[in-house]
Amino acid sequence: MGYSGGYKPPVNEDRLVFVLFIGSTKTSTIPGISIAGPTAEATLYTPTLDAEYLLAGKPLSLNIVPVSPEGVPTPAVVSRALLRLLGIPVLVVDSGAFLEPRIPHVALPSRRVGERIDKGRALPAGTAVRLFEEARLLGRTLARGLDVVVGESIPGGTTTAMAIMEALGFRARGRVSSAGPSNPHDLKVRVYEDGVKSSGLKVPERDPFRVVDAVGDPLHVSVAGFVAGAVEAGSHVILGGGTQMCAVLAILSRLGIELEGRVALATTSWLARDSSSDIEGLLSDVYPGIPLVVSGVDFDRSRFRGLRMYEEGYVKEGVGMGGLLAVARARGIPGDAVLEAVEEEYERVAGVAAEAGKA
Amino acid sequence: MGYSGGYKPPVNEDRLVFVLFIGSTKTSTIPGISIAGPTAEATLYTPTLDAEYLLAGKPLSLNIVPVSPEGVPTPAVVSRALLRLLGIPVLVVDSGAFLEPRIPHVALPSRRVGERIDKGRALPAGTAVRLFEEARLLGRTLARGLDVVVGESIPGGTTTAMAIMEALGFRARGRVSSAGPSNPHDLKVRVYEDGVKSSGLKVPERDPFRVVDAVGDPLHVSVAGFVAGAVEAGSHVILGGGTQMCAVLAILSRLGIELEGRVALATTSWLARDSSSDIEGLLSDVYPGIPLVVSGVDFDRSRFRGLRMYEEGYVKEGVGMGGLLAVARARGIPGDAVLEAVEEEYERVAGVAAEAGKA
Repeated sequence: MGYSGGYKPPVNEDRLVFVLFIGSTKTSTIPGISIAGPTAEATLYTPTLDAEYLLAGKPLSLNIVPVSPEGVPTPAVVSRALLRLLGIPVLVVDSGAFLEPRIPHVALPSRRVGERIDKGRALPAGTAVRLFEEARLLGRTLARGLDVVVGESIPGGTTTAMAIMEALGFRARGRVSSAGPSNPHDLKVRVYEDGVKSSGLKVPERDPFRVVDAVGDPLHVSVAGFVAGAVEAGSHVILGGGTQMCAVLAILSRLGIELEGRVALATTSWLARDSSSDIEGLLSDVYPGIPLVVSGVDFDRSRFRGLRMYEEGYVKEGVGMGGLLAVARARGIPGDAVLEAVEEEYERVAGVAAEAGKA
Repeated sequence: MGYSGGYKPPVNEDRLVFVLFIGSTKTSTIPGISIAGPTAEATLYTPTLDAEYLLAGKPLSLNIVPVSPEGVPTPAVVSRALLRLLGIPVLVVDSGAFLEPRIPHVALPSRRVGERIDKGRALPAGTAVRLFEEARLLGRTLARGLDVVVGESIPGGTTTAMAIMEALGFRARGRVSSAGPSNPHDLKVRVYEDGVKSSGLKVPERDPFRVVDAVGDPLHVSVAGFVAGAVEAGSHVILGGGTQMCAVLAILSRLGIELEGRVALATTSWLARDSSSDIEGLLSDVYPGIPLVVSGVDFDRSRFRGLRMYEEGYVKEGVGMGGLLAVARARGIPGDAVLEAVEEEYERVAGVAAEAGKA
């Protein structure tokens, strides 16, 4: 487990808060786009189940544990173990989840599920800027005096992230990652191009709010607003995630918001070494100067097949995993202790899952 | 400005978060109960306007500034000035406000406006325990690694607080405070006694959830749940408020939740020296061993009549004022600097009010 280039995120580790943004885009229901759920339709429930599980220790809206069709646990299992190990507070922000989470959370007033971007407009005109401003107010008031790790859960998110970056004029096709071991780049590009056609967006378009309303989703622009507000409040921010966080930075870049020295992107080694995506290249294109922090923990030695599958390219990132691993590393917690905490949580969850299966 | 007995709240001042609970009880619309709004009906909007103003710098749902019929500013003006002066993050939690605030906030899933307690049951059976558990989960997850100052805004709250304490078997009649210079004790008692009759509650009743469902409101039990969760998470808590916070402690006391060394009640000198109420006596009855911290700042020297009226017994407490004054004092900020920050904010708000008056 280590940082690339020895870089350490400039956060005060004693006053961190983890903020998880959740949201849905019906783009995730396009067959082949997302494996973040047992079926394509079920991907719409995943963010809510992730958030409920992260806080309450079990999903509340449905009696299932969020797993892929192959039985690989959601990254929320890793993140929950890390949050408890690190003793970091957590707050969930709903930017437009399909299902309202049954846990205390912040619901942005303009939250809304994103439509399939291949079929027309993602959001009603004006939604993106409202989400941005609402999340910015949250960042400005909540992050004051604290530093922040931001995570996300939105199935289909790498597709809308790619669409946002492409439409803003960055080359993102073939460079975003995927939660599955095989990355459906061609499908993602087709969905994006259908979206441009059916929304009538003229690309490249430099206004990120127009882009998001047309071919985006509710989450990335909300995270961008939150980061803008947190930085205004004097905070340092770790974006914990993969190539999706590059879409957040692309939005902030086009808005001309100054982030240098205040924001880092922290991802997992599973994501960083994925040969089907290019987070380093994307990052230096969308926002040069933002450091990339890569942290890993070896799951190959795990007792559990579901966790070992992370090493085969399943999941890779999500629910802030990379950001929380970076904090664990910065606090000097050994990889073995992280693996142990994750296995303990996985064991408990597998028990919960078996129980649910019987019910 | 000083502490009573030199007591210093045992919080880590560098990692504080201020959590404002808002809620409504239609009890506030009983003529003569509350002056926390321009009319009795308008008191239902006050918590939402307080929260919006606290975060956004102006009320968003209505184009007015929350003021009493006499033109005295809401305590939110003082709290907003203090939060900015201290650089403390803030989060609003809605336990059942009449109007949904148009700012990012946590809405407890079981939130609900309380009914007039004199007319029947305050909340549908089972609501109180759900609010408690939801807020407890929030406390357990959000307060982890942080210390907390909790504030409240609920017009009519001293009446329901009195009712909760009385029904739990504590003598509270004649001892709770009031936001106005004359305290309608007899009316409060009549409302409570009508409530006991019409709800069918047998008093004293030791189960706080039964009591709150019958003659309480959504806020106090939610604050109690949050405190319980925060303490479980290892946090220290400052309850910033007046005699209402004694109802929170009465609930926690009856639940047998151990708070000693972890929780302090911090109020203002305006409240502490109010001869129409008895916070010290109430506190030692409902939860012996919880320290009372009294902090003041002299508004007599203010340029503004509206602020000088605080010295005549208007307002006294609310929106966490006493808790935030305690933090200011603990950080060694002189009273003059506090007054200056409050006056600056008051001047800005008075400008906003004048503008709104013209519109």
